[in-house]
Amino acid sequence: MALTRSPLAPKRFPKLPAIAGLSFATAACGIKYKGRTDVCLMVLDAGSTVAGVLTRSKTASAPVEWCRAQLPHGRARAIIVNSGNANAFTGKTGETSVRRVVEAVAASLGCRPQDVLAASTGVIGQPLPTEKFIATIEGLPAKLKVDGWKHAAAAIMTTDTYPKAAVRRCEIGGKPVTIAGIAKGSGMIAPDMATMLSFAFTDARLPGEVLQTLLREAVDKSFNCITVDGDTSTSDTLLLGATGKAKHPRIADVRDPRLAAFRAALEDLLCDLAQQVVRDGEGASKFITIRVRGAASRNGARRVGLAIANSPLVKTAIAGEDANWGRIVMAVGKSGERADRDRLSIAIGGVQVAEHGEVVPGYDEAPVAQHMKGSEIDIDVDLGIGRGKATVWTCDLTHGYISINADYRS
Amino acid sequence: MALTRSPLAPKRFPKLPAIAGLSFATAACGIKYKGRTDVCLMVLDAGSTVAGVLTRSKTASAPVEWCRAQLPHGRARAIIVNSGNANAFTGKTGETSVRRVVEAVAASLGCRPQDVLAASTGVIGQPLPTEKFIATIEGLPAKLKVDGWKHAAAAIMTTDTYPKAAVRRCEIGGKPVTIAGIAKGSGMIAPDMATMLSFAFTDARLPGEVLQTLLREAVDKSFNCITVDGDTSTSDTLLLGATGKAKHPRIADVRDPRLAAFRAALEDLLCDLAQQVVRDGEGASKFITIRVRGAASRNGARRVGLAIANSPLVKTAIAGEDANWGRIVMAVGKSGERADRDRLSIAIGGVQVAEHGEVVPGYDEAPVAQHMKGSEIDIDVDLGIGRGKATVWTCDLTHGYISINADYRS
Repeated sequence: MALTRSPLAPKRFPKLPAIAGLSFATAACGIKYKGRTDVCLMVLDAGSTVAGVLTRSKTASAPVEWCRAQLPHGRARAIIVNSGNANAFTGKTGETSVRRVVEAVAASLGCRPQDVLAASTGVIGQPLPTEKFIATIEGLPAKLKVDGWKHAAAAIMTTDTYPKAAVRRCEIGGKPVTIAGIAKGSGMIAPDMATMLSFAFTDARLPGEVLQTLLREAVDKSFNCITVDGDTSTSDTLLLGATGKAKHPRIADVRDPRLAAFRAALEDLLCDLAQQVVRDGEGASKFITIRVRGAASRNGARRVGLAIANSPLVKTAIAGEDANWGRIVMAVGKSGERADRDRLSIAIGGVQVAEHGEVVPGYDEAPVAQHMKGSEIDIDVDLGIGRGKATVWTCDLTHGYISINADYRS
Repeated sequence: MALTRSPLAPKRFPKLPAIAGLSFATAACGIKYKGRTDVCLMVLDAGSTVAGVLTRSKTASAPVEWCRAQLPHGRARAIIVNSGNANAFTGKTGETSVRRVVEAVAASLGCRPQDVLAASTGVIGQPLPTEKFIATIEGLPAKLKVDGWKHAAAAIMTTDTYPKAAVRRCEIGGKPVTIAGIAKGSGMIAPDMATMLSFAFTDARLPGEVLQTLLREAVDKSFNCITVDGDTSTSDTLLLGATGKAKHPRIADVRDPRLAAFRAALEDLLCDLAQQVVRDGEGASKFITIRVRGAASRNGARRVGLAIANSPLVKTAIAGEDANWGRIVMAVGKSGERADRDRLSIAIGGVQVAEHGEVVPGYDEAPVAQHMKGSEIDIDVDLGIGRGKATVWTCDLTHGYISINADYRS
């Protein structure tokens, strides 16, 4: 099925610089798709550190389990990714496939298998065509390039309608540092740790455990705040590699104040990538920002935001350009979080429509109706009981989602 | 919007007997709908007992809060219901409306306002047209009839495409007893205590607290095991009235073994009504039964069942007649319940498709494909780790759901 580019897609693919110590190669292996690339190898110079967050699904894929075992070492030389087959629910066969794939990559690069991380995305429950995959891997090292961002972002797509990438620049101790990354994802998006797949890289020189803490904090405010359909993937993998080529002073402690700009840049980068995933939500026609404040806690605010964002009735109302705030009230109510009907207030497109437990009498419906016709929808909810706040991003639920998903595997 | 009768609807409305001590009246008040009834009064003889379960939504409607306050008395003389307006998120105005409505009913029947329960269903956040409603109520007592089941079931509908009712007969202490009930519901169905609205009545003679315990147990295996869209209503109300006209011996203890048949009949009745709600799920084309066993507990099994039943990806795959069991694996994984990939097995239409963590090699796809083309889909999941089991009922997610819900309020 040919998918047209999402109407919410960014105008163009961003200009990403090379990251010293990082190179890419892609290939068309034909794992599932014909006439496009579906394998991507990302290679890091010796001495690079790595951090990652993975799905908390109880039926995680074989490559996720492999990454879970290797990440505590905090080091990596390569990441091998394929699209079209998730290698999930493939039993011992799937584990053997991952092992053989990382061994092939290690042999071709002259590193240890433990230094190769793997990610797969696509259909669940079908054995990976391992021989074909390994044959493709052998040809990759000769093709490595430092400016392969766009090819890499394209090779990892499944039902995505455009490749996703972002870059941020900042300083650590007065020295310039770059962070750049790619992501894929469109459906089965309700990360419980990370999104479908995302790979970010920096030239910063940071120990694995510092990188891991920074990544976890940033994910908490980015990928863990998006949802397309409330379905959590078996494959969610977000890896952050650091090549250590930047010239900044040594940083050993995650609380070091010199990390402030890097921390902010990383969160911003991941928010950008996470929002790009939502903008490519299957069938999406509206990008929705839900800001919740006045909750008992930040986690409570996020749960309320996700209850609204995951409600099929809220999402279909927005698809129909209907400012049906009654459904938002319903979603707040079902979230299970502390709420007080008489303190709850709701604004749509910046116009207060409900407060003190009822509709704002005679509120001006015209600007709200106008806002609903746009493609960027803003919802503000104030629970009025505490200081917890969170922002969640999602998209609407349209006929496009049904069309894509009632006819995917066949 | 005219809705065509669900293809999953029962062939005909069942034949329901009169319940001694119960009568009905309906009227067309024009609260929202034109050209149909939208108000229903159900009157119970003096001495009747009542039990109820209500939504756990934190933004429950004004009539739900009224019922919550009155139900502990265990007695009722009347239930007044309207469709078209939920009287939810209507603040103090909504509370005043309920109070005035029940006072009007009480005055017309000569009972206390506390003995009148109320339920409203329809749009959220709009004030109830109280004067019009009260004017309609005044004319109702003159219209009371003992055989008004079908009219009552029709008057409480919103986006339902057919009226829902069921009846069961049993004995208590050798004497015949009848239980019969009606329900409405089609979208916003993920009961956390009850469904949208359901009213059941029996001629059994049971104290309010016995009735309450029996009702709670039966709800746990019926209405609390269904979902259409995972959205929990602000209005969920299930009331069970007992007129006490049956001739059976006095029962004072819910553990009395003479209640066994009544308990089974009540559960069976509520399962019938709950399944009728699913069969009228907005846009539904398939009725889906998900049986989960081998879980750590009954609640765990139900949570896994609901995770599958609420997954948009599972529901759209079934709409597309695709036996995509990979999405079932995903949903089990995201449920958060204990699961072991290598013990999980899945059958569709009675054919084992996955076991021991992978696809059953060479399973016969033909009967599975044939099963998916039918309108009754059976999914069996065995987690293989414990003895907990539960059955959950849902429907598929189709273009019809989007059409209905992207254009409901306007």
